[in-house]
Amino acid sequence: MTRQQLVEQIRSKQSYLIVGLDTDITKIPKHLLSGPDPVFEFNKQIIDATKDYCVGYKVNTAFYEAMGKQGWEIMEKTALYIPDTHFKIADAKRGDIGNTSSQYAKAFFETLQFDAITVAPYMGADSVLPFLEYKNKWTIVLGLTSNSGARDFELQRAGDELLYEKVLRTAAQWGTADQLMFVVGATQAGEFVNIRSITPDHFYLVPGVGAQGGSLKEISEKAMNKEIGLLVNASRAIIYASNGEDFAVKAMQIAKEYQQEMALYL
Amino acid sequence: MTRQQLVEQIRSKQSYLIVGLDTDITKIPKHLLSGPDPVFEFNKQIIDATKDYCVGYKVNTAFYEAMGKQGWEIMEKTALYIPDTHFKIADAKRGDIGNTSSQYAKAFFETLQFDAITVAPYMGADSVLPFLEYKNKWTIVLGLTSNSGARDFELQRAGDELLYEKVLRTAAQWGTADQLMFVVGATQAGEFVNIRSITPDHFYLVPGVGAQGGSLKEISEKAMNKEIGLLVNASRAIIYASNGEDFAVKAMQIAKEYQQEMALYL
Repeated sequence: MTRQQLVEQIRSKQSYLIVGLDTDITKIPKHLLSGPDPVFEFNKQIIDATKDYCVGYKVNTAFYEAMGKQGWEIMEKTALYIPDTHFKIADAKRGDIGNTSSQYAKAFFETLQFDAITVAPYMGADSVLPFLEYKNKWTIVLGLTSNSGARDFELQRAGDELLYEKVLRTAAQWGTADQLMFVVGATQAGEFVNIRSITPDHFYLVPGVGAQGGSLKEISEKAMNKEIGLLVNASRAIIYASNGEDFAVKAMQIAKEYQQEMALYL
Repeated sequence: MTRQQLVEQIRSKQSYLIVGLDTDITKIPKHLLSGPDPVFEFNKQIIDATKDYCVGYKVNTAFYEAMGKQGWEIMEKTALYIPDTHFKIADAKRGDIGNTSSQYAKAFFETLQFDAITVAPYMGADSVLPFLEYKNKWTIVLGLTSNSGARDFELQRAGDELLYEKVLRTAAQWGTADQLMFVVGATQAGEFVNIRSITPDHFYLVPGVGAQGGSLKEISEKAMNKEIGLLVNASRAIIYASNGEDFAVKAMQIAKEYQQEMALYL
């Protein structure tokens, strides 16, 4: 999916919502557990219920890997089930030396056919460039994350700036805003104006709204640019909105509430 | 595997060699390709041939993920096939917010039964602590890596030290030397004395010998401590020592050469 196609999707749906499929078999409704493939069935119903209100889905690889080879199979089936009109993100936080990152890029861009993957910046340019070689795909580099551990390194001094600022400034030279995004946590709203000044043109993938407490209004006011430049992810707040047989309906209602609020800011 | 058991294995085998299973189906001998499961067959023969000369195996998850769900299955079979006398490392470079890292820990420590996993430090304490909750398992945090991209952030100033020094100093407080190790690249030999002064008691997992050019002699002289404190990984130099029907014999010869050189330094 190109940047232009993504922006068109956002404008036509009046939504920059990404639904996070952090699907945990211990948290899905009990009535699904008697079926042959409860986690995929849950994802399928969540996707069917929410697809009109979001522009993409983010699959959190950890939750699938925890289930072993069956989990990897469910991840493949889920990635294939997401409509091609939607932006498909593998939230995988990968990154290694060049020949290894090339294998990760192959895994997520070719084998699983995701549009985008999240990557960790610590190992530097040659750990990220193999992902950027896929010109029709997106690489989403961790900038400033939503968790408390962001204070340990990301928000520490690095020369005459903070480490996350150095990461944004450096990584922005590795790829254009047509193929590179940054992860910026919704709980870091105090830094959003500064972040936007460093990377005026890039899209941000913003997790941390909902369960983690970030404010959609504040993020949108501070970080939107003229081509929107924002994808806001909600996972638990949507997919676990109800634990009963009405889980898909409730997920749809919450996704719709996000979409309606987003429409106000667009 | 406890630290004491690991040290005993090293002393009795006179080896601190880890064999890296970065198995790429395009690089294994052609005669294996007609079998039903060539990648697992290759790993099996490499393990059988090298197990007397090494103390562990490192499975590079990227190479298995690139093959999709079959690859994940081969990784499971390989992890199970490695003898329990050997230290089993998942080279996965994972790390995410706490509830997600917990899922990765479950995937690699419970489902796949590895003894250790490599993790990325960028997201800070709460991205690493879920791994350290497994008291009988090992968490191997990226310190200073072997690749050229280490210059982008790891070797940059961070306050009054370098970023990798801050990472070593900070992460060493998250867990003891009985459950925490660091990745230190063999190509960074100039920093080894300094690294050992910051973390005198920890084990290091050292990749970058062989194909990447690091010197075993220099690493061993500069970084060994009184409980050895070193695990040196070689991947391509061993597993691809020959591309013919003699690949396992050649892998054994190279592993034995490493072991014999290591015996001199012990």
